[in-house]
Amino acid sequence: MSKYKIAILAGDGIGPEIMQEGIKVLKVIEQRNEVEFDLIEAPFGASAYFSHGSSFPEETQRLVDLADAVVKGPIGLSHQESKKIPVDQQPERGALLPLRKRLNTYANFRPVYLPKSLAHFSPLKAEVIGEGIDIIMVRELVGGLYFGAKEMGVNDQGKRYVREMLEYDEDQIAAILHEGFKLAQSRKKVLHNIHKSNVLKSSVLWNEVLEEIAGQYSDVTVIHTLVDAAATALCLNPGQFDVMVMENMFGDILSDQGGGILGSLGLMPSACLGENGKAYYEPSHGSAPDIAGQQIANPYSMIGSMAMMLEYSFNMVDEARNVWDAMQSVFDAGYSTADLSKPGSGIKLLKTADFGDKVVQHL
Amino acid sequence: MSKYKIAILAGDGIGPEIMQEGIKVLKVIEQRNEVEFDLIEAPFGASAYFSHGSSFPEETQRLVDLADAVVKGPIGLSHQESKKIPVDQQPERGALLPLRKRLNTYANFRPVYLPKSLAHFSPLKAEVIGEGIDIIMVRELVGGLYFGAKEMGVNDQGKRYVREMLEYDEDQIAAILHEGFKLAQSRKKVLHNIHKSNVLKSSVLWNEVLEEIAGQYSDVTVIHTLVDAAATALCLNPGQFDVMVMENMFGDILSDQGGGILGSLGLMPSACLGENGKAYYEPSHGSAPDIAGQQIANPYSMIGSMAMMLEYSFNMVDEARNVWDAMQSVFDAGYSTADLSKPGSGIKLLKTADFGDKVVQHL
Ligand SMILES: CC(C)[C@H](C(=O)O)[C@@H](O)C(=O)O
Ligand SMILES: CC(C)[C@H](C(=O)O)[C@@H](O)C(=O)O
Repeated sequence: MSKYKIAILAGDGIGPEIMQEGIKVLKVIEQRNEVEFDLIEAPFGASAYFSHGSSFPEETQRLVDLADAVVKGPIGLSHQESKKIPVDQQPERGALLPLRKRLNTYANFRPVYLPKSLAHFSPLKAEVIGEGIDIIMVRELVGGLYFGAKEMGVNDQGKRYVREMLEYDEDQIAAILHEGFKLAQSRKKVLHNIHKSNVLKSSVLWNEVLEEIAGQYSDVTVIHTLVDAAATALCLNPGQFDVMVMENMFGDILSDQGGGILGSLGLMPSACLGENGKAYYEPSHGSAPDIAGQQIANPYSMIGSMAMMLEYSFNMVDEARNVWDAMQSVFDAGYSTADLSKPGSGIKLLKTADFGDKVVQHL
Repeated sequence: MSKYKIAILAGDGIGPEIMQEGIKVLKVIEQRNEVEFDLIEAPFGASAYFSHGSSFPEETQRLVDLADAVVKGPIGLSHQESKKIPVDQQPERGALLPLRKRLNTYANFRPVYLPKSLAHFSPLKAEVIGEGIDIIMVRELVGGLYFGAKEMGVNDQGKRYVREMLEYDEDQIAAILHEGFKLAQSRKKVLHNIHKSNVLKSSVLWNEVLEEIAGQYSDVTVIHTLVDAAATALCLNPGQFDVMVMENMFGDILSDQGGGILGSLGLMPSACLGENGKAYYEPSHGSAPDIAGQQIANPYSMIGSMAMMLEYSFNMVDEARNVWDAMQSVFDAGYSTADLSKPGSGIKLLKTADFGDKVVQHL
């Protein structure tokens, strides 16, 4: 019997309601495997700021240090609400980025996946989607502009200015590129390297390091694509991509564009992996405060993040596959939630919790 | 009789062939108006590097200083070819960015425009496009990461590192926001402010300045959208956007995504405006070396850039309108070029030059 301690950080907005559905799935997995999940909830995000005075309270910090894996819901509030929290304590700067740094989860895997049978979710034409979309974006998650030094001040002319640093060293770059290459090896042996070397020196170093290590992966073909060209190509012909590797900010933007071409960020689970098995899992969408508490958010991204945890943290590859298949079956049977359906599409609407129940049934 | 000196920088790849078509259009405008265009060609880009030893030769620098307007083709080579030029002399760093700085064209206007009748060009479903796409992205063009200090070196541990600065001061921010607000006033009175204030301090200052000047445009509603959320939304529902304002790098990526939702970067002309009438005009796509010289590139983006010049630099608003309409008529008559057509779409294929001729006929 394996025992795992899992930190459950439900987060803000729709976080708690989709987390519930993920937990249902974990219970099923637990029942039928030689495994015990010790689920420990802890406060995190804007709600934690208001209830505990910190968006990443100490008890939560201690918990994530101990846990075998962390599952995290989306965090954040509306633009207006955010202003009630001092800038540096807002949940992104005060909780999410510190979590990433603390666990040093430098590798963020974001599948952009839509089987042909779900093509109707996508805003793209069926002929553009072809046989489906099956991309994994590998995003560097603890470097770049996100973590570089930042300075705000007033200059000699009395003008306010701001400076922030995009920083990388060769080890950080090599670490994420190795992840990209290894993943490419396990898939189609093609790696799309996304960069902006015609402007950014960080991309110049990035590409230098890539050339140095590419020899270790001689079975992988590297295709260089400028980040702007990639943004065009993701709309025009997503099928050309398989594994895409990129720095932090590019990954933020392109992966959300990925959610766009799928039809919803609600279809975007993700895994954030560090060294020595440190990892956390999160939907890559926001907390959608506008629809929170209404049971209309689809829990796919959260349940999918749990599936990634089963695979990456606990090596339960078959059960992970089963979870994906179960979700697929629910969609295939014509069900979805309101956030993922268009009026008149003939989809049978389920509440968040009912969608979770159906997934459990199919498991 | 007004006389204008126009610098013609044809650039690389497909640049020269689409420039020819733009020039045809200018000749027509010249014939039927009290205006004389003095078109002066000058070397610029990678081709200039190989022929003149510099991608922005001195004669070209002198010319752009004198000219009443500059029209510039795309520049750049394939990833492999670029490597034959030292990094700092590559045409982006050695020519394009210095051109922007020299003319201080801080405001880049990029229409993302697709009338309903051209919806078939788009990878998006007809119901996503609805009544058409009609966005103008206003991109800050002479600040941010593009022009901040850059440093590459070896650190104490003997590791190569790179640091580059994202810099803005309040005046730069205010200047571009004013452009956004004014444009919004002349259109639907809605301004989408694209930022990443949950991570970037530059966005925090950006939004502060926005709040300070918003009072001067009390008829404009500001909608705040995170850059990643905007990337999702541009795919899911582009019709929600009208004027979008953003910093340099965000504008680079989102405007190319704009080309993606239209169906081609070939549909993306642009205007780069500075103070005191300084301006240059350019297609926002690359030089497409793979299809250069084959007469299959559509000259729309170049002719459209000329139309923007007629409007913004020479105040020939009606003739600008006529040029857009003429291009529209050619498409409406069922014609296009190979780069802008899908096999089997029933479109009558024209070569680049024939497309230009048809536009001239409709004028
Ligand atoms: C919430 C925000 C800080 C975060 C990011 O920018 O990384 C989110 O957009 C994401 O992509 O995980
Ligand atoms: C060629 C390149 C330097 C340029 C940019 O990044 O600004 C281009 O992509 C653009 O958008 O005009």
